[in-house]
Amino acid sequence: MDIYKDKFSEDVGSFFRSPVREIFKKVDLNAIYSFAGGYPSAETFPLEEIRRTMSEVIDKYAGKAFQYGATQGVPELRDAVAKRYGVPVDRVQITSSSQQGIDVCTRVLVNPGDVVLTSNPSYLGALQSFCSYRADIRGVAHNEDLDVFRQAYEAELRQVKVEGKKVKFLYMIPDFQNPSGESLTLEERQMLVSLAQKHDFLIVEDSPYRELRYEGEHIPTMYSLDPDRVIHLGSFSKIFAPGFRLGWAIAHPEILDKIYVCKQSLDLCPPIFDQYVAAEFLSSGRLDENLAKTIALYKGKRDLLLSLLEEHMPEGVRWTRPEGGLFLFLTMPHGFDAVKFYDKALDAGVAYVAGEFFHPDRSGKNTMRLNFSFMAPERMTEGIRLLARLLTAQS
Amino acid sequence: MDIYKDKFSEDVGSFFRSPVREIFKKVDLNAIYSFAGGYPSAETFPLEEIRRTMSEVIDKYAGKAFQYGATQGVPELRDAVAKRYGVPVDRVQITSSSQQGIDVCTRVLVNPGDVVLTSNPSYLGALQSFCSYRADIRGVAHNEDLDVFRQAYEAELRQVKVEGKKVKFLYMIPDFQNPSGESLTLEERQMLVSLAQKHDFLIVEDSPYRELRYEGEHIPTMYSLDPDRVIHLGSFSKIFAPGFRLGWAIAHPEILDKIYVCKQSLDLCPPIFDQYVAAEFLSSGRLDENLAKTIALYKGKRDLLLSLLEEHMPEGVRWTRPEGGLFLFLTMPHGFDAVKFYDKALDAGVAYVAGEFFHPDRSGKNTMRLNFSFMAPERMTEGIRLLARLLTAQS
Repeated sequence: MDIYKDKFSEDVGSFFRSPVREIFKKVDLNAIYSFAGGYPSAETFPLEEIRRTMSEVIDKYAGKAFQYGATQGVPELRDAVAKRYGVPVDRVQITSSSQQGIDVCTRVLVNPGDVVLTSNPSYLGALQSFCSYRADIRGVAHNEDLDVFRQAYEAELRQVKVEGKKVKFLYMIPDFQNPSGESLTLEERQMLVSLAQKHDFLIVEDSPYRELRYEGEHIPTMYSLDPDRVIHLGSFSKIFAPGFRLGWAIAHPEILDKIYVCKQSLDLCPPIFDQYVAAEFLSSGRLDENLAKTIALYKGKRDLLLSLLEEHMPEGVRWTRPEGGLFLFLTMPHGFDAVKFYDKALDAGVAYVAGEFFHPDRSGKNTMRLNFSFMAPERMTEGIRLLARLLTAQS
Repeated sequence: MDIYKDKFSEDVGSFFRSPVREIFKKVDLNAIYSFAGGYPSAETFPLEEIRRTMSEVIDKYAGKAFQYGATQGVPELRDAVAKRYGVPVDRVQITSSSQQGIDVCTRVLVNPGDVVLTSNPSYLGALQSFCSYRADIRGVAHNEDLDVFRQAYEAELRQVKVEGKKVKFLYMIPDFQNPSGESLTLEERQMLVSLAQKHDFLIVEDSPYRELRYEGEHIPTMYSLDPDRVIHLGSFSKIFAPGFRLGWAIAHPEILDKIYVCKQSLDLCPPIFDQYVAAEFLSSGRLDENLAKTIALYKGKRDLLLSLLEEHMPEGVRWTRPEGGLFLFLTMPHGFDAVKFYDKALDAGVAYVAGEFFHPDRSGKNTMRLNFSFMAPERMTEGIRLLARLLTAQS
C-alpha cells in the first residue's frame, strides 16, 4: 500500500525472514521426512505429569498463578534456576523464550554498525536478531588447531580496529552448536574469554543444548571462566517443552538491570502460570527424571542417524559427530549447492536446512543441517535412504 | 562495574523505569490499600473452568500444545479472534502480551527523533516503550470542545512541521483510557482519523479495556473508521487473565508482515499452551460467560468508589466518572504535589500512582490515578477513608 511507503523504521530494512520458518509455513512437517527445524520429539513431553503439575499449581497458587507478576520472573522459578546452576538469585532473569534473551542482549548492547563477533556458521535466530539491530556481523570459522583458531579471531579483531569499529560482544554456542553440533574444548573457551578480556568485549554464551549430552564429560561454561564478562543464556525448550516459551539469562546484576528495564516495556513479565509450572517441575525433581529419558531417547536417535549416514551416504559426503544436542552438519563435495538442491528434495518429500543460511558470510553452500530429535526412528531411516538416493543421483 | 562503562547501546540511555513496577518491588500489594497498579481482581479468574479447559487442551492437542508453533499465533486462536472482532484472519497477529503489541509497533515504525503523538496523560508502559526507541513524544490534552481539541492537535502538527520532523503515529486508548478512565466520542475519533489521513500518519489504537463497559453504548473503534491506517491492539489480560501474557494486533497485512518478521527474532512465537487455552475458552463461550460476571463485579466496584469519593473527599478534589475500564483520575487543588505526597500515603498504608508519571510533559502534578478492580469492597472503603483523611489533613 502506498501509505506505508515512508512509514517503517530503518531497522525494518535489515530484517530478514527465517528460511526455516518459511519452510514450516509451506509444508506440514508430519507429512514429509523433516530433518529441518530444531523441534524436540513430542514423545519427550510428559503429558500426564504436566497435567498433574498444572492442577497442583492451581491448588497451590490459585489466582496468583493467573495474575501479573514480577518483571524478573516469579521468585520460585528464579530460585530454582539459581539453585540448579549454582548462581546467586540476583544474577537470574527469566526470559520469555531464550530467543528473547538473545534479542534483549542485542538491544541493550548494540548500536547500528557495532560489530558482533560469532562463529561461522552460527544460529540463524541470533543472526536475525543481530541484523534487525543493524549490527555488523563477523563470523570466524572454527579450526581444530588452537593457534590457528586464535589467530583467525585476532585477525578479525585487527581488521575491526583498522575500520575504527567496536566489537560489542562475541556470540557463542559452546555446547553442541546449532547448526554444527560441535562443542568448544576447554582450551578454546579459555582462549576466547582471554581475547574478550584483552580486547575488552563481552560474551553472550547461548546454551540451550548443554544438558543434552549423550557421551563425554561436561566442559565448564564460558560464564564460569569470567562471570562478569559473560552473559549466559539458558532455555526450558529442550529440557522441558518449547511451548512454554521460557528461558533465563544469568549475568552480572548491572547488565541484568538494563535487561530488566528493557523488559518492562517489551512485555512487562514472562508468562506467569507457565513459570509456576516450570518451577514446580524443576523443584519436584520431575524435570530431571524426564530429562534422563529424553537423553536416552536422543542418544539412540543420534546413533541411528550416524549409522544411517555411514551406510547410505555416497562417497565424498562428510558429517560431524556431536556428543549431544539436536543437530549434525553434513558437508557435500565442493560445487554442491544445498539451496538449489532443496526444492528437489522437498518435492521428493525430505526437508533439511541449507547450511548457507547459517553462514554470515554466505559461504557453506555445500553444507546442510540435519536434526535428529524430531522424527521417529522408522521415519528417520526412510528419510535418510531417500536423501542418500537423491544425493547419489545428483553426484 | 568499570567494564560496562562503554558497553551499552544508545537506546539504554533513554530507558526509564516504571514507577508503578518500582512500587510493587517495595511493598506487598495485599498488605496495603492499593489503588495503584492495573491488576484485575483475582476473583475474576475462573480457576475450576481454567483447570478443566487445560485438561481438555491436553486431551485434544497432546504434544502439539507443548511444541513450537507459528510466529503469527496458533490458527485456532487467530480464527477465534478474527471471528469475535469480525476481521479477516490474515489481519490478526497474536502477541505475547498487548505490551509487546505496543513495543513491536514502535520498533517497526519509529526511528530515533521521530514524533509519536499521544494524549496528555497517556499509558505509562507505552511512554516507556516510545522513550526506549528515542521517539520524540508529544502529548495533547483533551478538551471537551471538539474544535478546541482539534486545534490543539493542529497546533502540535504545525509545530512538528516547523521543526522538520515527522509524526509516525498517534497512540490512543479511546475506550476508558489509562490513566483517566475517559473515552473519546465518535466525533473525536472521526476528527483524529481525518487528521491522520490529512497529515499522513498512522494510528495505534490500544484497546485493552474496551469490553469492560458498565454503562452506555459501545462507540465504533478507530480501526473501523480506517482499517488501513489504524493498528488495533487487544488483550486477554482484562477479559480473561494477565498471567497468560496474550494479546493481539489487528492491522493491514503489509504492517503485520513487518511485525511477523520482527517477532521471529523477538521470541519466535507466543506461548503455545496458553494460546490453546485461550482459544478453547473463547470458542466454547466460557470467556463470555465469565466476562459477564467480571463486568457485573467491576460495575459494582466503580459505583462504590464513586460514592466513597462523593462521601469522603475534601472540597476542591475532582474526579472522572468512567463508563468502563479499571481506573479513574483524581485532580487535587492546584499546588498539590502527588509525587511528594506519595511517601506519606504509603507510610500510612495506601498506594496510588501519581498522575505526573503519565504526562509526557510532566504536568499533572496535582493528579493521581485510582484503580478500582483489584481491591475487595471492604478494603476499598477503608482505603478511601484513609486517603481522604490524609488529603483533608494536608489541605
